[in-house]
Amino acid sequence: ALAAPAIAQSSSLPTIKWKLASSFPKSLDTLFNAIESVSREVKAATGGKFEIQLFAAGEIVPSAAVLDAVKDGTVDMGQSASYYYVGKDPTFAFDCAVPFGLNSRQQSAWMWAGGGLELMRELFKSYNIYNIPCGNTGVQMGGWFRKEIKTVADMKGLKMRIAGIAGQVMGKLGVVGQQMGAADIYPALEKGTIDAVEWVGPYDDEKLGFNRVAKYYYYPGFWEAGPQLSIYVNLKKWAELPKEYQQILENACANAHVQMQADYDVKNVVALRRLVAGGAQLREFPKDVMVAAQKATYELYDEFSAKYPTFKKVYTQWKKFHDDQNLWFRVAERAYDAFIYSQGTRR
Amino acid sequence: ALAAPAIAQSSSLPTIKWKLASSFPKSLDTLFNAIESVSREVKAATGGKFEIQLFAAGEIVPSAAVLDAVKDGTVDMGQSASYYYVGKDPTFAFDCAVPFGLNSRQQSAWMWAGGGLELMRELFKSYNIYNIPCGNTGVQMGGWFRKEIKTVADMKGLKMRIAGIAGQVMGKLGVVGQQMGAADIYPALEKGTIDAVEWVGPYDDEKLGFNRVAKYYYYPGFWEAGPQLSIYVNLKKWAELPKEYQQILENACANAHVQMQADYDVKNVVALRRLVAGGAQLREFPKDVMVAAQKATYELYDEFSAKYPTFKKVYTQWKKFHDDQNLWFRVAERAYDAFIYSQGTRR
Repeated sequence: ALAAPAIAQSSSLPTIKWKLASSFPKSLDTLFNAIESVSREVKAATGGKFEIQLFAAGEIVPSAAVLDAVKDGTVDMGQSASYYYVGKDPTFAFDCAVPFGLNSRQQSAWMWAGGGLELMRELFKSYNIYNIPCGNTGVQMGGWFRKEIKTVADMKGLKMRIAGIAGQVMGKLGVVGQQMGAADIYPALEKGTIDAVEWVGPYDDEKLGFNRVAKYYYYPGFWEAGPQLSIYVNLKKWAELPKEYQQILENACANAHVQMQADYDVKNVVALRRLVAGGAQLREFPKDVMVAAQKATYELYDEFSAKYPTFKKVYTQWKKFHDDQNLWFRVAERAYDAFIYSQGTRR
Repeated sequence: ALAAPAIAQSSSLPTIKWKLASSFPKSLDTLFNAIESVSREVKAATGGKFEIQLFAAGEIVPSAAVLDAVKDGTVDMGQSASYYYVGKDPTFAFDCAVPFGLNSRQQSAWMWAGGGLELMRELFKSYNIYNIPCGNTGVQMGGWFRKEIKTVADMKGLKMRIAGIAGQVMGKLGVVGQQMGAADIYPALEKGTIDAVEWVGPYDDEKLGFNRVAKYYYYPGFWEAGPQLSIYVNLKKWAELPKEYQQILENACANAHVQMQADYDVKNVVALRRLVAGGAQLREFPKDVMVAAQKATYELYDEFSAKYPTFKKVYTQWKKFHDDQNLWFRVAERAYDAFIYSQGTRR
């Protein structure tokens, strides 16, 4: 092993300062931490030459406009959840989460080894963007309900804050989907303007205090089994980046990818325990709700496939991948986890 | 955003060439790929200045001597599975896997956000090593058995190729543990010198052809629910590394960490399907085997705790973490996965 003493060398690596616009507020700290660590580690790995300045949602770009801002070069980079852009093309949802989709580990398997990243890069390329996976929340909760759901019939007419493809699935079950920002949900739930709300999971939900106005806390959030967050880089800016910085940026995102899931897994337990102690009633969605929702989801996928060639192409590949993954997960992973869960804690 | 044109600057970053000794042969390609990607990405991120030369098991250091070689500075770095070193101190197993331990995602949560990395760094520091998590196989299979196991009584007297803490657990069930290298297993199983063997999972097992001489393929490998692989760096060498290179190396390991689990998840399915088509009979360990093995495991942990203060310290923290994680995983993750597995594939 040879460690040469410090030698002055000419270096052609440029000093770069980029702007990153996030779709998230700083209060969603588990999400915001991801870009803080990417920025910090990119700086550390380049000896301070490559700096990324962070802007929370709304500071320079509105939350749902991050994709366009990166596409147009208004900002160099973005952090977002790609299912925000299903209005442009429902195919974007595969980069984040689709109902009855991959769990967190399967989503990573699809992106890193299952052909998913290539398919998503192709999609984003047509929007002038280079996308990098950067974090996952794990399966989210089904949300807070003012009344108990005993059967799928109880979903009919329910006014629920839920959007995107999940909102369309719920619509097929008779749920009336509502869109509203974080600040408006609590008062709407308190007054009964809405009957239910889905947000994220215990850690993020606790901050908004929903348990005080809707005591039934349902799971699982079958529309978000493993939602992945993504980093967007303007494609021209990406191409201009030295190879060194490209590698450094990709790997900083990989580290944040692991960190975010770990943070959620650790923080959700603590919050869940407090929520239950504070009166939240945990309830599993009845099986007939799950079955009906899955059927509605499949109908929707057929509709999208008929309408969007890109969706059809990705869905066909993704569907086979998902089936294969479950074949394997159903064996050793399922058997192990099921035994552990059945045993409770050590006496 | 400001991208300064290339400016010649004086750079103090040194040219470094390190040697890495792996505990694994190149034939275990999913494991070996991890260090190949670390080496490739570290080189790319430093413009070729930081090179890591790779040596497979036995090329310069025997498989089980990697820890000592890094500790003594014979090599700069190593790749290993830390449970190989339980003979020195059983606490090393927490850096990889212990029976009835954390699954893959929980292991990452412990390392990245649950205090595990700090505890493991403290342990490795006393061996002159800086350790970095770098990959996971996911839950392994229970192995190949010549005869069916119907009850825990069938385990008594069974000659099985199994080692380490898992071997001690099996010993308490009456299994006679045998240690042998990869090349000796197949003939021993064919002749009936041994009755059973545990190796890894479908992808790695298939290469050794065990299905031809032992048709019952048991799961889950309860002694390896989420075995983590690790990179070891000689502590003095780590301290000499520029901060830039430290960050680059850590993040290359993080990317390989995600990649390895993804590779196993994708490759295991394909291999499992071929093995089953080739006659392998999949069997789940009977519940009484699992319960007896868990009881034996707990006895062993008490014995280790009484004997090794470090084990006691880590086990106490780890045990609480594991219980907490299961509290959360038992809710949304379990409910979602259970539904998906119960539904089969889409008609």
